[in-house]
Amino acid sequence: MEYKGEQQLEEYLGRITHSDQISMKNALQHWMSIAKPLNSLGRLEEVVTKIAGIVGTSNVSVKKKGLIIMCADNGVVEEGISQTGQEVTAIVSENFAKHDTSVCVMAEYAGVEIFPIDIGIVTEVQGIEQRKVMNGTNNMLHGPAMSREQAIEAIKIGIEKVQELKQAGYEILATGEMGIGNTTTSSAVASILLDTPVETVTGRGAGLTSEGIEHKIQVIKESISLNQPNGNDPIDVLAKVGGLDIAGLVGVFLGGAIYHIPIVIDGFISGVSALIASRLHPICKEYAIASHVSKEPAGMMLLDALELKPFLTCDMCLGEGTGAVAAMPIIDMAVAVYHQMRTFQEIKVEQYVPLK
Amino acid sequence: MEYKGEQQLEEYLGRITHSDQISMKNALQHWMSIAKPLNSLGRLEEVVTKIAGIVGTSNVSVKKKGLIIMCADNGVVEEGISQTGQEVTAIVSENFAKHDTSVCVMAEYAGVEIFPIDIGIVTEVQGIEQRKVMNGTNNMLHGPAMSREQAIEAIKIGIEKVQELKQAGYEILATGEMGIGNTTTSSAVASILLDTPVETVTGRGAGLTSEGIEHKIQVIKESISLNQPNGNDPIDVLAKVGGLDIAGLVGVFLGGAIYHIPIVIDGFISGVSALIASRLHPICKEYAIASHVSKEPAGMMLLDALELKPFLTCDMCLGEGTGAVAAMPIIDMAVAVYHQMRTFQEIKVEQYVPLK
Repeated sequence: MEYKGEQQLEEYLGRITHSDQISMKNALQHWMSIAKPLNSLGRLEEVVTKIAGIVGTSNVSVKKKGLIIMCADNGVVEEGISQTGQEVTAIVSENFAKHDTSVCVMAEYAGVEIFPIDIGIVTEVQGIEQRKVMNGTNNMLHGPAMSREQAIEAIKIGIEKVQELKQAGYEILATGEMGIGNTTTSSAVASILLDTPVETVTGRGAGLTSEGIEHKIQVIKESISLNQPNGNDPIDVLAKVGGLDIAGLVGVFLGGAIYHIPIVIDGFISGVSALIASRLHPICKEYAIASHVSKEPAGMMLLDALELKPFLTCDMCLGEGTGAVAAMPIIDMAVAVYHQMRTFQEIKVEQYVPLK
Repeated sequence: MEYKGEQQLEEYLGRITHSDQISMKNALQHWMSIAKPLNSLGRLEEVVTKIAGIVGTSNVSVKKKGLIIMCADNGVVEEGISQTGQEVTAIVSENFAKHDTSVCVMAEYAGVEIFPIDIGIVTEVQGIEQRKVMNGTNNMLHGPAMSREQAIEAIKIGIEKVQELKQAGYEILATGEMGIGNTTTSSAVASILLDTPVETVTGRGAGLTSEGIEHKIQVIKESISLNQPNGNDPIDVLAKVGGLDIAGLVGVFLGGAIYHIPIVIDGFISGVSALIASRLHPICKEYAIASHVSKEPAGMMLLDALELKPFLTCDMCLGEGTGAVAAMPIIDMAVAVYHQMRTFQEIKVEQYVPLK
């Protein structure tokens, strides 16, 4: 059984190929003809060119947008590492179904449809997609959060969701999550994969006091010490000190690379997931787009490790996909300029010489 | 005549008062009740609270949005400090009227109406508001770019435009400009007002080569040396080494503080204008909102001097108001969450303890 999961994952990874250089070149060529100084829209130009490579055509469209929100509980919450209790995961997840959370309001503005998935909430939650791998992970302070097989199962759920949405015509997907305790698991994973002290990558989450952070750091350190995750084996790290929401999002990033659809990273937890995906296959980075820098201390470190640059620096740390959704209008405007702006020839201005 | 202008400006400055602390407190109180970790939307929460103070009510609305684009020519362009000739100012300004520039495309997406103003283009331009102070400034390498009286006249045009738009129901205004050579004038002003070497605040503009920048720096240095602007007298600096577009935008920032309407700073040129306004009256900062950090080297220095933080870090440097317009959907989403999100009480979650 375990062998089958690993094998399937290998098969998925084997399907990942580089984004399309010719489409990127064509997109760049089009940017050069547009009547404005080349590169003057900076990241807005870059993202359109990158998407051209991802989707394999310079005729870029990002009209149909989705947000996949992986919802799961973390056993380590019983150690008191979070500001609120585990029941909040279920409450907020149900509110996604009622379109009644921060990201729902923002997604409505930005024209993004939301797809919340119960990939491992402790309790039953009404109105969201049921793909529960287990009823919350185990407490990583006493052993692995989940088995290797369960981690891979959660990854597959993410991959399959991307496939489904790609087939349904979605052109760009954002990542989001809901899971009390998931900045704790994310800090644990980030510490291992970035080879950085736990203190450096651990923050206040939803609002811990200084004493709360100290305790959180201690719990993470002990969990790592007990489980001894192997930093060269991303699945091992994910299973031992990660979470099901992270695992599901790893699948979403892999799915982006497999099905050629841009995946917008949200903040800390999404960033950790993108990093795991990039460690499973480095080409995943070519299919991921940074949105904002999380206020959590590891936010920028993760983007640096992924060699990605953000649009937004707003000190956001809400999760749910709020940062990714906030970047969507920027991407929309970039695509609008790309398609609608006239060329130098049309406005009768001599083309600017490209920057050296 | 000169006395009258100075006196009028003094009268305007005398009308500026602090933004409303009670409305800000009420807005903050409302944010605290909303069912999400306090401060987790970072700058998005801050901007709504700030706008509450500006408009004097916690019932914030930014539905009706305008962009004032000051268009003017700079005599110093004859020194070859820019990538393109002066005729491009008129061409692009006419394209504003035809809704045919980068910012027009973005403004349409963001629901922002544009108001291009000819405040000093060399030639006649059809279809945009005529408020020409002079047919382009004089070449600052040979003397002051304009007289003190002309600078004040341009400032008044900006103030009056804000008054007009406020009366027309606009709730938030963005700043933009078009004027070949205006990164040269802006660098000159920034160098004096930030008391920083010309080299540090001078960049490639619309795409100069390294040799081009060297020449641009030399021209700025010689212009400053000849004109000896007094860094303690912002109008003196503006008149001697600034431009009419900058002067008009100084008026827009003053107008924001006088008529209690938030003014969104675009990039380098807008930032220089906001800095001049803040030197004329420090309270102007309370009415200005940062949008993005320009790729021009002084971008972040200006925001630091204004004690403002940006939403966007996209390496943009196009001007026209593109950065300010790009930030509008972020502000819209912030206001949407502020008004539409339910409270902790409504979703039956215990209120999170505010961060220490």
